[in-house]
Amino acid sequence: MNIALPFPCEPFFQLPLGYRTLLTETAAQVSASEAPLVFAGVLLCLVVIYLASKVGGELCARLNFPPVLGELVGGVLIGVSALKLILFPENVVEGDAPALLTQFLQWSAGISPESAMAIAAQYSEVLSVLAELGVVFLLLEIGLESNLKELIRVGPQAAIVAVTGVAAPFAAGTLGLLYFFHLPVIPAIFAGAALTATSIGITAKVLSEIQQLNSQEGQIIIGAAVLDDVLGIIVLAVVASLAKNGEVQLSNIVYLIVSSTLFLIGSIVLGRLLSPYFVQLVAKLKTRGNLLITALIFAFILAYISAVIHLEAILGAFAAGLILGETDQREELTENVLPIADMLVPIFFVCVGARTDVGVLNPWVPENREGLILAVFLVVVAIVGKVITGAVVFGKEKLNRLAIGIGMIPRGEVGLVFAGVGSASGALSPSLTAAIIVMVIFTTFLAPPLLRVVFKAKAPPPDQSLVPETAL
Amino acid sequence: MNIALPFPCEPFFQLPLGYRTLLTETAAQVSASEAPLVFAGVLLCLVVIYLASKVGGELCARLNFPPVLGELVGGVLIGVSALKLILFPENVVEGDAPALLTQFLQWSAGISPESAMAIAAQYSEVLSVLAELGVVFLLLEIGLESNLKELIRVGPQAAIVAVTGVAAPFAAGTLGLLYFFHLPVIPAIFAGAALTATSIGITAKVLSEIQQLNSQEGQIIIGAAVLDDVLGIIVLAVVASLAKNGEVQLSNIVYLIVSSTLFLIGSIVLGRLLSPYFVQLVAKLKTRGNLLITALIFAFILAYISAVIHLEAILGAFAAGLILGETDQREELTENVLPIADMLVPIFFVCVGARTDVGVLNPWVPENREGLILAVFLVVVAIVGKVITGAVVFGKEKLNRLAIGIGMIPRGEVGLVFAGVGSASGALSPSLTAAIIVMVIFTTFLAPPLLRVVFKAKAPPPDQSLVPETAL
Repeated sequence: MNIALPFPCEPFFQLPLGYRTLLTETAAQVSASEAPLVFAGVLLCLVVIYLASKVGGELCARLNFPPVLGELVGGVLIGVSALKLILFPENVVEGDAPALLTQFLQWSAGISPESAMAIAAQYSEVLSVLAELGVVFLLLEIGLESNLKELIRVGPQAAIVAVTGVAAPFAAGTLGLLYFFHLPVIPAIFAGAALTATSIGITAKVLSEIQQLNSQEGQIIIGAAVLDDVLGIIVLAVVASLAKNGEVQLSNIVYLIVSSTLFLIGSIVLGRLLSPYFVQLVAKLKTRGNLLITALIFAFILAYISAVIHLEAILGAFAAGLILGETDQREELTENVLPIADMLVPIFFVCVGARTDVGVLNPWVPENREGLILAVFLVVVAIVGKVITGAVVFGKEKLNRLAIGIGMIPRGEVGLVFAGVGSASGALSPSLTAAIIVMVIFTTFLAPPLLRVVFKAKAPPPDQSLVPETAL
Repeated sequence: MNIALPFPCEPFFQLPLGYRTLLTETAAQVSASEAPLVFAGVLLCLVVIYLASKVGGELCARLNFPPVLGELVGGVLIGVSALKLILFPENVVEGDAPALLTQFLQWSAGISPESAMAIAAQYSEVLSVLAELGVVFLLLEIGLESNLKELIRVGPQAAIVAVTGVAAPFAAGTLGLLYFFHLPVIPAIFAGAALTATSIGITAKVLSEIQQLNSQEGQIIIGAAVLDDVLGIIVLAVVASLAKNGEVQLSNIVYLIVSSTLFLIGSIVLGRLLSPYFVQLVAKLKTRGNLLITALIFAFILAYISAVIHLEAILGAFAAGLILGETDQREELTENVLPIADMLVPIFFVCVGARTDVGVLNPWVPENREGLILAVFLVVVAIVGKVITGAVVFGKEKLNRLAIGIGMIPRGEVGLVFAGVGSASGALSPSLTAAIIVMVIFTTFLAPPLLRVVFKAKAPPPDQSLVPETAL
C-alpha cells in the first residue's frame, strides 16, 4: 500500500543502450517535448480539485456544516479511497493501473504509458508544492486576522481555557495511545498533538450564526481559540520536528520549544521594530504589487528560515502574518492575500483528502478494527478534553461553562493540517491518519448542533446578551 | 552550453546495489526525506525572484521605463548571464558548479551535493510550472481587460493599423531572416512572429502619461493594440505549434489557423451563450471564492483544451478572460485576479530573463557577431514595420499618422512571451532569443521618448484634445 513507484526512471528500462548515455538522452527528451504536458497535467488536476472542493464545500454549506469539511470529503472522493482520479506516489501500488487523470492525459495527448507515468510523477510533485503553498497562505491569512492586541486583551480567562484545552487532550490522548494501544512514542505524540487544535474560523462562524459572538462566553471562546492556534502551531512545529528526527530526546524537545518560542517571539519583536520601515518602503514603491510582493518576500524569508532550522514553513508564515497584521496596511494586504488563499488553500485540503485512504476504516475488514477503535478513542478524548475546559474558567458565576467547553470542540482546518503534515512526514500510519480525520470530521460536525442546544438552554435571553455588531 | 544534466538520476550511480532495487529505494528516499526541502528551495527561489523583480521594476519606474523591463533585466542579473543564482536545466553545463541558490540550500540544510542537485531539478520544474501559471494569469487578465465591444467599436481604422502592423513586420522579418541570413524556416517564422506584437499595457500606460489616451490617435492606437494582441496570440499559437511539429506544411498551417480561429470564436460564442448560467451559478454558490474558483475552473478547462489540441494554454486563458469580461462580474473578478497575477506574473518575466544567456551578445567574442547583426536587423524591421502602419490609415486629414505608427512600436510583455515560448520549445537558438529580447528592450525603451516628441510637435494644443478622464 505504501510502496513508492520510481516514476521518473521507469522509461530507462525500455531502452537498449548503455545506461549512462541513455539517462542523459532520456532526461533531455523528457524536458524538451513533455514540459508543456506537465503543465497541461497540472491544469487538469486543478480543474478536478476545484470541482471537488466546490461540490463538497457547497453541499456542506447547505447542510450548515463548515465548507472546509466538504473540500476534504471531495478530496476523499477523487483520491485513493474512491475514484482514483489523482494518486500521489505514496498511494501507488506497483502493478496497478495509473490514476484516471494520468490515463486521460495519455489518451487525450496521444503519448505512451511510460511518458504519461513520468509526467504524472512531475505533476504530482508540483501539486504537492502548490498544496504546501496553500497551507502557507492559510497560516499567513490566519496570522493577519489574529490581532496581537486582541490576543492580549481577552486576558487570563481565555488563556486558562486555551492551556487546559491543549494540555488535557494532548496528555490524555498521548498516554491513552501509549498505554492502552501500545503505539510507538512518535505516532502517539503526533496524534495527541492533533487533538489540541481549535479552529478559529469554524468556531467564529458558528458563534456568529447563533448570534453569540459578542456574549461573554463567545469572547472567551474566540480568545482561547486564537491562543490555541498559536499553541497548536508551536506544538505542531515541535512534533513535526520530532517526527523528522525520529526520536524523542529531552534536549531535543527543549531545543525545539526554545527555538520555536525564540523564533516566534524574536521574529515578532524584530518584526515590530522593523515594521515602520516596511510601511515606509511600501509607500515609496511605485510598481504594481508593491505591498503584496514586499509582504511575500518577508513571509517567504521567515518561512524559509523556519523550514531550514527544522521547524515548519507554516510557523514562519504565521509569524509574518501576525507582524504584518500590526501594520497600517493590514486591511489592504488581507484583501490581496484573500484571493490567493481562495485559489491555493482548497488544493491543500483536497489533496489531504485525496491522499487519505479511508478504506482502512471499513468495518467489514478485520484488520481495520484497530483504526476504528483508535477513531472512537480519539473522538471521546477530543470531546471530553475540550468540554472540561469550561470547568476551569475562574470568575463570574453566571458563565455558561458548558457552552465554552463545547465552543472549543471543532478542530477544523488546524486538525487537518496536523493530519496532513503527519501523514506526509511518515509519522502517522494510514489508520492513525484516517482516525484523526474521522475525529476532525466528528468534532467539527458535532459542534454546531451542540452549541445551538447549550446556548438555547442556558444563555440569558437575547436582549440581555450583547448585540453581535462589530465582533471580528 | 545546452546539454541537460540528468539531475534526478545522478545519485543512482553512487549506490552499490543491483540497480532495480536501488531505483525503488532511492526514489522512496527522495520523496520522504527531501520533499520539505524541495518546498524550501521553491521559497528561496521565489524570494530571490521577487527581489530581482522589485529592484529592477522600481529602477525602471523611476527612469520612466515600463517596470516589466526591469523584471526582465532583474532576471538576467540573477540568471545564467550574470550571478547564476538560479539555473534552469538548459543552462547547466555538465561539470560546472551548481547554481548558487542550490549551493546555499545544500549548505543551510546540511545535505549532500547529490541530494541538492536532485532537489534543484525538482524545484526548477516547479518554478517552470509557476512561471507558466504566471503567463496564463497574465493572459486571463489581458482578456478580462480587453472589451469585446470596445474591440468592435474602435472599428475599421484600428483594424487596418493592426493588420498592417502584424503583416508588414512578419513578412519583412521572416523573409529577411530567410534570404539575407539563411536561417532555417521555423526559427525565421518564429522570429518574424515575435515582431508582430504590440503591448497594450505599455502603450496605454505611455499614452495616459502624456495625456493622449482619449485623443483620436490614442483611441486608434489602443484599438489596434487590442486587436494586435488577439492576432499576435493566434500567430503565436500557429508558430508555436509549427515549432513543435518541426515542419511547415500548408495543410498544417490551414489546420492551425482554422482550429485556433474556431477555438477562439467557438469558445467565445459558446461562452457568451453560457455566461448567463455562469452568472446564475456563481450567485447560488455560498462558499468563499465562489466567483474566483468557478472562473478558474472555466479558464483552466479552456487552457487545457487549447494545450491538448496543440495550441497554447495561454490562448484558452485569453479566450476565458474575454468571455468572463463580458459578464456582470467582470469588475469583481478582475479584482480577484489582480493579486494572483501580481504574485505569479513576475515569476514568468524573471525566469525568461534568467534563462536568457545575453553573453551571446558580447561583441568582443567573434562568434557572437551573427546574434548582434540579427539584433540590429530585427530592431530596424520592428520599428519600420510599425511606423508605416500610420501611413495606411484612411479617413480624416488631420490625423497624426507618425504618432499612430510610433504608438504601435513597444513590444513589451507580448514580445517576451514569444521569446520565452520559442526558447522553451527549442525553436529559437540562444542567439536568436537574445536578439529578440534586445529588439523588445529597444522598441519598448524607444517608444516613450519618441511618443513625447511626436505628440508635442504635431498634436493639437491640450485644450482641443479630449480630456483623459474615463479611458480604459
